[in-house]
Amino acid sequence: MALPLDVLEKSMNQKLSLLLKDGRLIEGKLTGYDEYMNMVLNEVEETYEDNKRRLGTIILRGNNVVSISL
Amino acid sequence: MALPLDVLEKSMNQKLSLLLKDGRLIEGKLTGYDEYMNMVLNEVEETYEDNKRRLGTIILRGNNVVSISL
Amino acid sequence: MALPLDVLEKSMNQKLSLLLKDGRLIEGKLTGYDEYMNMVLNEVEETYEDNKRRLGTIILRGNNVVSISL
Amino acid sequence: MALPLDVLEKSMNQKLSLLLKDGRLIEGKLTGYDEYMNMVLNEVEETYEDNKRRLGTIILRGNNVVSISL
Amino acid sequence: MALPLDVLEKSMNQKLSLLLKDGRLIEGKLTGYDEYMNMVLNEVEETYEDNKRRLGTIILRGNNVVSISL
Amino acid sequence: MALPLDVLEKSMNQKLSLLLKDGRLIEGKLTGYDEYMNMVLNEVEETYEDNKRRLGTIILRGNNVVSISL
Amino acid sequence: MALPLDVLEKSMNQKLSLLLKDGRLIEGKLTGYDEYMNMVLNEVEETYEDNKRRLGTIILRGNNVVSISL
Repeated sequence: MALPLDVLEKSMNQKLSLLLKDGRLIEGKLTGYDEYMNMVLNEVEETYEDNKRRLGTIILRGNNVVSISL
Repeated sequence: MALPLDVLEKSMNQKLSLLLKDGRLIEGKLTGYDEYMNMVLNEVEETYEDNKRRLGTIILRGNNVVSISL
Repeated sequence: MALPLDVLEKSMNQKLSLLLKDGRLIEGKLTGYDEYMNMVLNEVEETYEDNKRRLGTIILRGNNVVSISL
Repeated sequence: MALPLDVLEKSMNQKLSLLLKDGRLIEGKLTGYDEYMNMVLNEVEETYEDNKRRLGTIILRGNNVVSISL
Repeated sequence: MALPLDVLEKSMNQKLSLLLKDGRLIEGKLTGYDEYMNMVLNEVEETYEDNKRRLGTIILRGNNVVSISL
Repeated sequence: MALPLDVLEKSMNQKLSLLLKDGRLIEGKLTGYDEYMNMVLNEVEETYEDNKRRLGTIILRGNNVVSISL
Repeated sequence: MALPLDVLEKSMNQKLSLLLKDGRLIEGKLTGYDEYMNMVLNEVEETYEDNKRRLGTIILRGNNVVSISL
């Protein structure tokens, strides 16, 4: 069985695609996380209502995340 | 009596259909979970307002889940 | 005095009618629960805005529940 | 001083009127409660947008309650 | 320094005016409270969208309260 | 480094401007607080949708606060 | 691996750009934080629906934050 945090650990330095509660889509390389699924992402691109923005490195609060696509 | 987490355990490697708080429907094979009902799902297909998307493997945050159909 | 969880225990294998926060109505037979009022329900029928769906067996997250009619 | 839970204890077997977060009004006789203000109510009548429904016995989740009129 | 709960303690048996999250205004005499700022209020008058209602004695859940005017 | 609660401590008896989640603006002199950032404020003036109200002394629940301007 | 709080620690005295749940954008220099990601920011500029405001020093509640761009 794969614990969700173990799957996150195996995804380190890989590109993830995250859906946030407000509909925002975040794509970036995972460089860190904690037990609350707060994450550090590099080379981030955000898509929101057809607009794209480059955000560089971000800290993302875990409680805003709906799902993480590997 | 069937504890909810025991029922999840018995559903490992089976296809589940999940309803999320935002109305999203997620179908996929359960490959992991934790005590907060965070889940790891494979071969995921998302349906949202008549649009379908294939998402591959996802980590789903348990606090967005309304119900899980076995 | 009847503790809410004791009343749930006495309702095992009986048909319940649950109102969810999003207005969804869930009817089904209670086959399990935990201390957070997460529930396992069999033979589930969901009613939402005049549409009915059969859902079979579901795990329902307790924090989406408003009230449980015995 | 009257602790809220002590006031609830003294209201056992009495008729209460509860306002829920979604605007629903619940009237019923208190037959049980727990430390989270989850309640068991008998002879329940629900009023919602001018519609009344008899609900019999219900378990009500405390986190949906705004106020309890004695 | 005045701790919020100490200020509540000094307001016992005095008339308070409370603003709730849903815009409701509650006026009443404080006769009890607990550590979560759940309160017991007597001689309560509720104002909501220009309608006033007398509610007698109520238990008010603290997590619905925005502010308490002394 | 300045811990948020230490900054609040240094702001005692000073005028603060607080933005609440519902868009309300609260200005007042800080006379107390606790670890949850519940606050006691004196000489309070509330601004909401271009309307101003004097509120005297209030207890403000910390979980409604977005930001505190010193 | 970079823990989110460690990344915040390394961002001390640097300019950050924060997105809040209500769509507000906050730019400022980080001068403090705690384990809940409550933050103290200096030289703050807020952008909200095309309006900019200078806010000086603020304490920002962590539970309103969606993401922090370094």
